[in-house]
Amino acid sequence: MQPIMDKYEAGKLVDAQRIRKGKTWAELAALIDRPLVWSTSALLGSFPVPEELADKVCAELELGEDVREALMQQPTRAFDAALLDDPTIYRFMEAIKVHGPALKALVHEEFGDGIMSAINFQMDFDRREDPAGDRVVVTFDGKFLDYHW
Amino acid sequence: MQPIMDKYEAGKLVDAQRIRKGKTWAELAALIDRPLVWSTSALLGSFPVPEELADKVCAELELGEDVREALMQQPTRAFDAALLDDPTIYRFMEAIKVHGPALKALVHEEFGDGIMSAINFQMDFDRREDPAGDRVVVTFDGKFLDYHW
Amino acid sequence: MQPIMDKYEAGKLVDAQRIRKGKTWAELAALIDRPLVWSTSALLGSFPVPEELADKVCAELELGEDVREALMQQPTRAFDAALLDDPTIYRFMEAIKVHGPALKALVHEEFGDGIMSAINFQMDFDRREDPAGDRVVVTFDGKFLDYHW
Amino acid sequence: MQPIMDKYEAGKLVDAQRIRKGKTWAELAALIDRPLVWSTSALLGSFPVPEELADKVCAELELGEDVREALMQQPTRAFDAALLDDPTIYRFMEAIKVHGPALKALVHEEFGDGIMSAINFQMDFDRREDPAGDRVVVTFDGKFLDYHW
Amino acid sequence: MQPIMDKYEAGKLVDAQRIRKGKTWAELAALIDRPLVWSTSALLGSFPVPEELADKVCAELELGEDVREALMQQPTRAFDAALLDDPTIYRFMEAIKVHGPALKALVHEEFGDGIMSAINFQMDFDRREDPAGDRVVVTFDGKFLDYHW
Amino acid sequence: MQPIMDKYEAGKLVDAQRIRKGKTWAELAALIDRPLVWSTSALLGSFPVPEELADKVCAELELGEDVREALMQQPTRAFDAALLDDPTIYRFMEAIKVHGPALKALVHEEFGDGIMSAINFQMDFDRREDPAGDRVVVTFDGKFLDYHW
Amino acid sequence: MQPIMDKYEAGKLVDAQRIRKGKTWAELAALIDRPLVWSTSALLGSFPVPEELADKVCAELELGEDVREALMQQPTRAFDAALLDDPTIYRFMEAIKVHGPALKALVHEEFGDGIMSAINFQMDFDRREDPAGDRVVVTFDGKFLDYHW
Amino acid sequence: MQPIMDKYEAGKLVDAQRIRKGKTWAELAALIDRPLVWSTSALLGSFPVPEELADKVCAELELGEDVREALMQQPTRAFDAALLDDPTIYRFMEAIKVHGPALKALVHEEFGDGIMSAINFQMDFDRREDPAGDRVVVTFDGKFLDYHW
Amino acid sequence: MQPIMDKYEAGKLVDAQRIRKGKTWAELAALIDRPLVWSTSALLGSFPVPEELADKVCAELELGEDVREALMQQPTRAFDAALLDDPTIYRFMEAIKVHGPALKALVHEEFGDGIMSAINFQMDFDRREDPAGDRVVVTFDGKFLDYHW
Amino acid sequence: MQPIMDKYEAGKLVDAQRIRKGKTWAELAALIDRPLVWSTSALLGSFPVPEELADKVCAELELGEDVREALMQQPTRAFDAALLDDPTIYRFMEAIKVHGPALKALVHEEFGDGIMSAINFQMDFDRREDPAGDRVVVTFDGKFLDYHW
Repeated sequence: MQPIMDKYEAGKLVDAQRIRKGKTWAELAALIDRPLVWSTSALLGSFPVPEELADKVCAELELGEDVREALMQQPTRAFDAALLDDPTIYRFMEAIKVHGPALKALVHEEFGDGIMSAINFQMDFDRREDPAGDRVVVTFDGKFLDYHW
Repeated sequence: MQPIMDKYEAGKLVDAQRIRKGKTWAELAALIDRPLVWSTSALLGSFPVPEELADKVCAELELGEDVREALMQQPTRAFDAALLDDPTIYRFMEAIKVHGPALKALVHEEFGDGIMSAINFQMDFDRREDPAGDRVVVTFDGKFLDYHW
Repeated sequence: MQPIMDKYEAGKLVDAQRIRKGKTWAELAALIDRPLVWSTSALLGSFPVPEELADKVCAELELGEDVREALMQQPTRAFDAALLDDPTIYRFMEAIKVHGPALKALVHEEFGDGIMSAINFQMDFDRREDPAGDRVVVTFDGKFLDYHW
Repeated sequence: MQPIMDKYEAGKLVDAQRIRKGKTWAELAALIDRPLVWSTSALLGSFPVPEELADKVCAELELGEDVREALMQQPTRAFDAALLDDPTIYRFMEAIKVHGPALKALVHEEFGDGIMSAINFQMDFDRREDPAGDRVVVTFDGKFLDYHW
Repeated sequence: MQPIMDKYEAGKLVDAQRIRKGKTWAELAALIDRPLVWSTSALLGSFPVPEELADKVCAELELGEDVREALMQQPTRAFDAALLDDPTIYRFMEAIKVHGPALKALVHEEFGDGIMSAINFQMDFDRREDPAGDRVVVTFDGKFLDYHW
Repeated sequence: MQPIMDKYEAGKLVDAQRIRKGKTWAELAALIDRPLVWSTSALLGSFPVPEELADKVCAELELGEDVREALMQQPTRAFDAALLDDPTIYRFMEAIKVHGPALKALVHEEFGDGIMSAINFQMDFDRREDPAGDRVVVTFDGKFLDYHW
Repeated sequence: MQPIMDKYEAGKLVDAQRIRKGKTWAELAALIDRPLVWSTSALLGSFPVPEELADKVCAELELGEDVREALMQQPTRAFDAALLDDPTIYRFMEAIKVHGPALKALVHEEFGDGIMSAINFQMDFDRREDPAGDRVVVTFDGKFLDYHW
Repeated sequence: MQPIMDKYEAGKLVDAQRIRKGKTWAELAALIDRPLVWSTSALLGSFPVPEELADKVCAELELGEDVREALMQQPTRAFDAALLDDPTIYRFMEAIKVHGPALKALVHEEFGDGIMSAINFQMDFDRREDPAGDRVVVTFDGKFLDYHW
Repeated sequence: MQPIMDKYEAGKLVDAQRIRKGKTWAELAALIDRPLVWSTSALLGSFPVPEELADKVCAELELGEDVREALMQQPTRAFDAALLDDPTIYRFMEAIKVHGPALKALVHEEFGDGIMSAINFQMDFDRREDPAGDRVVVTFDGKFLDYHW
Repeated sequence: MQPIMDKYEAGKLVDAQRIRKGKTWAELAALIDRPLVWSTSALLGSFPVPEELADKVCAELELGEDVREALMQQPTRAFDAALLDDPTIYRFMEAIKVHGPALKALVHEEFGDGIMSAINFQMDFDRREDPAGDRVVVTFDGKFLDYHW
């Protein structure tokens, strides 16, 4: 009688086996035929993974039933505040800190009082070649929701 | 002998006169012929505004010398933590909290050890029509910088 | 050339004149023919008030143009953390702290992975008579949004 | 000589066995004939569970004496601050942040100086069908307590 | 058109005039014929003061209409966290920190699952003579409320 | 070669055995012939327990040498901030937050500049019957200490 | 009808006039014939200053009635957390952080369970000449108080 | 292949064996012929202990090689914030909070712009007999360092 | 009878006049013949400025007696936590966060147990030309201080 | 099926074996022929270590495959906030707190609006002999990045 393995712990095991078997996140996304960012988030523990996809991943990476069970569960989406010190994550936060008031003004100007949904939402990750140095391009794409009483 | 007006205070005056004169941020961006997100951020106080652009904005909005002087200064880029409670800004933060670990994994997989620059960086804001409800599309586009000793 | 009055400051003036003129929030809601909780939140500064409603309220309460202008603006929705010490507000927070994990479990069981929208949302406030002491009844009513990529 | 199992740990075991045996929270609430929100909160660790109910649940889910013992204890009601990052829980908090001052004003207008009790209190959870998308409806129902010296 | 004076600001004016006119809190409590702790809390801004009592206090202390108006309002009960550094207040907090778990255990043992109400509550302040040094005696007296669904 | 068991861990074992053997805190206080609040605090880990008393308690509850050794040690008196979310403890804190400034004013008015000692201090816990609902009565009784250079 | 001047504001005026008139803290302590640390703390706002001493200081420094009135009041002893960044104050805190556990162990070894009083307490400040560089010598001298029920 | 034992864990084992063998900190200081406060701090983990002294202590207290190895290492000097709730340590912090601004003023008046070193520093702990109750006397003694470019 | 102007406020006036008169920090450092970083820090309010230097700066920038008086005072060295959000300052903090443990290890390896003084300390700021992009070079240069009892 | 060892845990094992085998960080840096600060940071867990270097270090220090695997991974760069209490690290932070505003002003004056990169960055650590006491010299050397849209 064990509790279900923590999804973030399961995600660490996915990552460890992925590295040991020389698989990329892109290859895992192709294996389950899902978008890249979603697949990576889900396999790291942030989304429930449908059973057939969990099966494929666990088979490919030789992960056990405990990981498979955990991947399928509903997550409690947490954010480890220690990640704010990691420069790769911090730069995204910084961009929002610097441009947040402008984003808010533009959402309201273009759409009215409301928000970009973070639930009806998708995120794309791309590399754009540039002779001055290739660029990381991340797109936030969410449905506008107006305050509606 | 007065200190230079705080740039965020100047930004509030730009915004107030903009509203009273019925101008949109898009119109101000067109007036100074600069990108939309940059223009909005800069006129709200987050970037130094070149003199000729500050002149145009202050003339259009009938703002005084104190605002013009403030707009041109170097900002101290701050972020009012109270903005985290605003739902329109919070959703952007939430998206990074949920997908941050995946973004980090993908930056490293695609580019190696490093970051998306938030300095050699641009952000676009768009509306995409969708029959199920129009969407807010925000693009983060920054040069990859690898850890380089 | 003044900045627009802070909406929460405008809300304090609405409240002060409301008290001095002996009006209840329910009477103001009736005056503008809008729901009670929305009207109170909006007149305290948390929602943009349409111009004709702002006109009616300012006329009724003899408030000036600065208040009228402020009421119509888009709010930056903030929450003064000092309010957490107020027992009347704290009890609502406490109820969520105690029942939050259960609410999360039930949302997911009944609807799947997603949230109750706080944007496509309404709140009702009622008094229910009870011989053992009347009861405060507050209803949260928000559209379910599923994680949708 | 072991300490009594932490009630939240016991709740994780209840949840794990519930999932493995394919039981819903609603079925467990029916099993013990108690309201849905109370049952879920109590079995997750937030309320002391009367012995006969703990017996039924542990028999149904094949849980051991350590879980049974823990369920019956008085809880120390804590709230894991990390849950604030979970979007499903955050939206309830956000609704209170946005409407808290209005709720406070309306409690005082309707009842006088006092609070909605969070102890003499019940919470209901419902789904309301709606052609524009079904809705989550949560009712807070607490006795009014006036400041009484 | 002024907002209503902040009740804590009004309390500072009550205190200032009280000192200048050589009145004790005990004398003010006698003047309004209310308990000592309640009177002091209320005149410092933590309770709404009934009109006839506000009249008496303002007459006695030569305070203006703005103070009188403020005293009668419903408070937002806040707590200035800076007070935690004041040794006289800190010692009360320390006593609860040291004995809090015991108090909780004893409430539950004697009364069952519930709380001492802080709303249906009174507090007494006394001096007890003691040859080894007089003692401060403060009594917390609140109705027991059991968790009641 | 083990470190001494943490006194709060020892307190959890006292509590677990107390429950399993059906003893109340009042019975344990009677067993060691000490005041009720002190006994409960001490056996939960907040005070050093004299050897003969530790012997009695460990014999009664069939606790081992490691618990006995821990009970006798000098505590580091900590306070788990998570307890602030527990409603039973929070209400005591709330009472001090609401009445703290009044308590401070009354200590100074009655005794002069100084504090109620939290060291030369005792706390009583009582139940007072009341037809409108029995009451929790807690008395703080500490020696006045004046600032003395 | 003004509130009484904040004691820390009064302290800033004492300090400003002290500097302008070329007086040292030691000279002010001599003027009022009180210990050096006490005098400095009191004139900066941390202790009530007896009337005759306040008279002397205000006369010497040509300070007004508002300062005189403020100096005599009971302080709310606060500590501006920003001072923790000041290196001169931080070093004292650092010494306690590094040696705090040892001080606690030695207090208990030498005196038993209790504290060094910070109320029945005096602090001395001295310069000790040393060929390797003069030394700052600060003495904490407080009555031992044992936990006494 | 084990990491080196944490120095604070080693300190707990020193303390446990010290208690079990009936040794005082003063006796251990005498054993290694070092000052009392330094010895206690060092054996609790805050200073590197020279090898010959670590040998003596470990022999006297029958501690193993893992403790001996840990005692000799360079510490990372941390401070457990939970200790701030311990009254015996809090009083020292409180004394600095109350007198910190005065200490800063006196350091600058007597020595100029600079600090009392917390590195070239020693602390003494004494008991001073006093008919009104013995006193804890702690001396901070650090070299003055002036800001020197 | 005014308090002395806050040194950081004085620094803002220095900066405003510097900009209006087209002077660089380097020119002001040359004017007073002091190192560049020290001069900038001091004129922004972090160091006491000797009278003759304050005279020169105030004459050059046409600043008044209040600024001159403030520049000469002893600072309370604070750090506005909001500056942590400024990317230009954050990068310096980030470098220490990433390399702090290594710096600590190297200080101890090379010098023994102790610190780099931040008091007997100087900092240089340079531009180094580099065909791949010029570089910011900042040197921290502080006397090693060993723990010395 | 184990997760990959935490890189900071791996760093502790590197450090432990380094000490036991009497190797300095400088010797390890020479072994892998990399700069001193980079080598120390990387072996403590802050940089991915190329495989051939990890091989050399693990062979030299007799570390196992788990450490070797961990050293090669991409780090999540965190910063343990408890390190802020360590005096050796705190002094670097303090220097930035005191001089941060000046550094920001000088970066902008010399280079324009932008930052010193902490990614295209190197840090040197040196000892400079000085008859008044040797000095710790640490150089921050990062490419200037201008805000570039």
